[in-house]
Amino acid sequence: MPSPLITLTTDFGRTAPYVAVMKGVILSINPAATIVDLTHEIRPQDVRHASYFLRTAVPYFPAGTVHVCVVDPGVGSERAALCVETPEQVLVGPDNGVFTGVIRRLGCRAAGALTAPPFWRAPSPSATFHGRDIFAPVAAHLSLGVGREEVAPGKFDPMLLPARCAVTFGKRWSGEVQFVDDFGNLITNIPACKMKGLPVRVSLGGAELGTVRWVRTYSEAAPGELVSLFSSDGYFEIAEVNGNAARKLKVDAGVVVELEQP
Amino acid sequence: MPSPLITLTTDFGRTAPYVAVMKGVILSINPAATIVDLTHEIRPQDVRHASYFLRTAVPYFPAGTVHVCVVDPGVGSERAALCVETPEQVLVGPDNGVFTGVIRRLGCRAAGALTAPPFWRAPSPSATFHGRDIFAPVAAHLSLGVGREEVAPGKFDPMLLPARCAVTFGKRWSGEVQFVDDFGNLITNIPACKMKGLPVRVSLGGAELGTVRWVRTYSEAAPGELVSLFSSDGYFEIAEVNGNAARKLKVDAGVVVELEQP
Amino acid sequence: MPSPLITLTTDFGRTAPYVAVMKGVILSINPAATIVDLTHEIRPQDVRHASYFLRTAVPYFPAGTVHVCVVDPGVGSERAALCVETPEQVLVGPDNGVFTGVIRRLGCRAAGALTAPPFWRAPSPSATFHGRDIFAPVAAHLSLGVGREEVAPGKFDPMLLPARCAVTFGKRWSGEVQFVDDFGNLITNIPACKMKGLPVRVSLGGAELGTVRWVRTYSEAAPGELVSLFSSDGYFEIAEVNGNAARKLKVDAGVVVELEQP
Repeated sequence: MPSPLITLTTDFGRTAPYVAVMKGVILSINPAATIVDLTHEIRPQDVRHASYFLRTAVPYFPAGTVHVCVVDPGVGSERAALCVETPEQVLVGPDNGVFTGVIRRLGCRAAGALTAPPFWRAPSPSATFHGRDIFAPVAAHLSLGVGREEVAPGKFDPMLLPARCAVTFGKRWSGEVQFVDDFGNLITNIPACKMKGLPVRVSLGGAELGTVRWVRTYSEAAPGELVSLFSSDGYFEIAEVNGNAARKLKVDAGVVVELEQP
Repeated sequence: MPSPLITLTTDFGRTAPYVAVMKGVILSINPAATIVDLTHEIRPQDVRHASYFLRTAVPYFPAGTVHVCVVDPGVGSERAALCVETPEQVLVGPDNGVFTGVIRRLGCRAAGALTAPPFWRAPSPSATFHGRDIFAPVAAHLSLGVGREEVAPGKFDPMLLPARCAVTFGKRWSGEVQFVDDFGNLITNIPACKMKGLPVRVSLGGAELGTVRWVRTYSEAAPGELVSLFSSDGYFEIAEVNGNAARKLKVDAGVVVELEQP
Repeated sequence: MPSPLITLTTDFGRTAPYVAVMKGVILSINPAATIVDLTHEIRPQDVRHASYFLRTAVPYFPAGTVHVCVVDPGVGSERAALCVETPEQVLVGPDNGVFTGVIRRLGCRAAGALTAPPFWRAPSPSATFHGRDIFAPVAAHLSLGVGREEVAPGKFDPMLLPARCAVTFGKRWSGEVQFVDDFGNLITNIPACKMKGLPVRVSLGGAELGTVRWVRTYSEAAPGELVSLFSSDGYFEIAEVNGNAARKLKVDAGVVVELEQP
């Protein structure tokens, strides 16, 4: 039988020992757990980044995987700590919107607040490191077979981030840049399937970019050319071939995108 | 039975293949070992950083875990290579002080020098990469059940880094910044339990900062405010809420900290 | 029986969810696979960096390990996707030269193109993310025991990068910097075994550096001194002790190196 999977997604970076501590806590409770690093480079305290990241990655994991997210600017405040079940995945983390994307994509079967100290590291958790004292131990107990309703009894409505929805009017679309990847590609939240690969007039944050050609792959255009394409998730994406579109255009996640086809 | 755990802590970064090579060496000797990355982003050749990191993380791991540390500015010189047993953990690395923090926190049950070539990758190790040729293979053999006294026969006194101890005079404390985390929070070596959460007059490196308010969590203060709080390990910590205290105050690890309460 | 090993080498970084997605895809097909991160910090689209990295790391892994590399500037173009068998290792990735170093070092026993959609994630892969849709699922099927000739039927000659060979004329050598590590050390492709540790006159990119002293280890020289030594793989290497030779000399991989001994 394969060992139970626990994934970790944090903004801790790797200079500080926080991730290492969480791994030790998990393996001390369940030495048979397999820990999978998703990332520890969520931009510091960027809950929207975490939500986008988890929305994209979580659905690919086997049913029953426990996903821990610690991007937690409100640690120690009154914000609740959560366990959320989608139909197949289990999520553990703060109630601050980090699970918005996953919940919108996969649905929420049940959710409860982590109010059962027997599954914490100690009855009085540190005010600044719930990753060590609550989230890691709860995930380890879940991976041992403890039920969601034991670690998080009752019901709870997870907080969801407000979303600027993508909107379509005939051959016009508006939405926003939802993510800038490490190559500087701008991934919008506008589904691209209706655009049929035709050229698109693009405006970003109110500034006209002109018409951008559609390519199927980066290799169809010349280095330095600005192109549009389907992102690997089917969204409208703007890229500079062998360059960095975000830096060239000076835009970041959240910028309004407006598109028009003739 | 869970697979044996080997953790890795280095300053190798991930651009060079050194970490990958060590993983291959370990898995070739013990394919059943579970390798846990603690960090490969110890600041280059920063033995104090490694000591702080390991001191914080190692105690959380299950008994019998083998921890390999390769932060080794003196590789190939006469510095010894070590295997140290604390009451529960096993440490493998250079004798240059990287284990100071762990040994001070957990104690040293036994230590020996790695002088048994049968457990190395080859009898003549490279002069510049003991991680591959000595530390990784020794850790793999330990994880197979070989005893410490076989890989490191005899006795050895590990080198310990000099420490500027934290000192208390009534309601005055002095010590140093022992670590700056990725958020720029200054973690001192001054235990905070006697300070009762009252305001503290702070001086850093001889410069007066004025009186800093105590908060239980970052969320109790306004963005940009300088606050003091308990670190997750119980030390006095200075943070700029939603900011970077180290950059704002231009201080780094090692700076003298003096505190006074009225 | 130990679980099958799959290593990952990419230029995806960790800000974007691409690596996490590949891990989910692999574990959904083979939950018993052990995934080993080699690096996700290959310099973006730098096929030569990937080739050097894999050449150095792959030979250390146990026989039968499956190594996935996704450094793929031509994704979605007509470039083929490959499975290569060396006598002991299995390689999966794009046909763009990333496996040049491994093939030159270990030899190629058999290679085929990934033309069998049953082992992909879906019959129509995304044009921009073959890591998720082809390479990760193929590697997972290989780790389940599927044969190379099933996922990559037929024969294929992998593309190899052109190499500026290291050349010797008596006591003169020429070659190139093949890699700059995170410490700024310049690792050439000139085997150093014939140089006997004697001083060497060095010219880099046509600029004379003067004569550089040979040391066995960094600790034999003063901080700031430029020295030559054997790299951990036996190549001629130039380092600045406790400094960064690449930054000091303003050179990068690919620069011509000429050496002469009196």
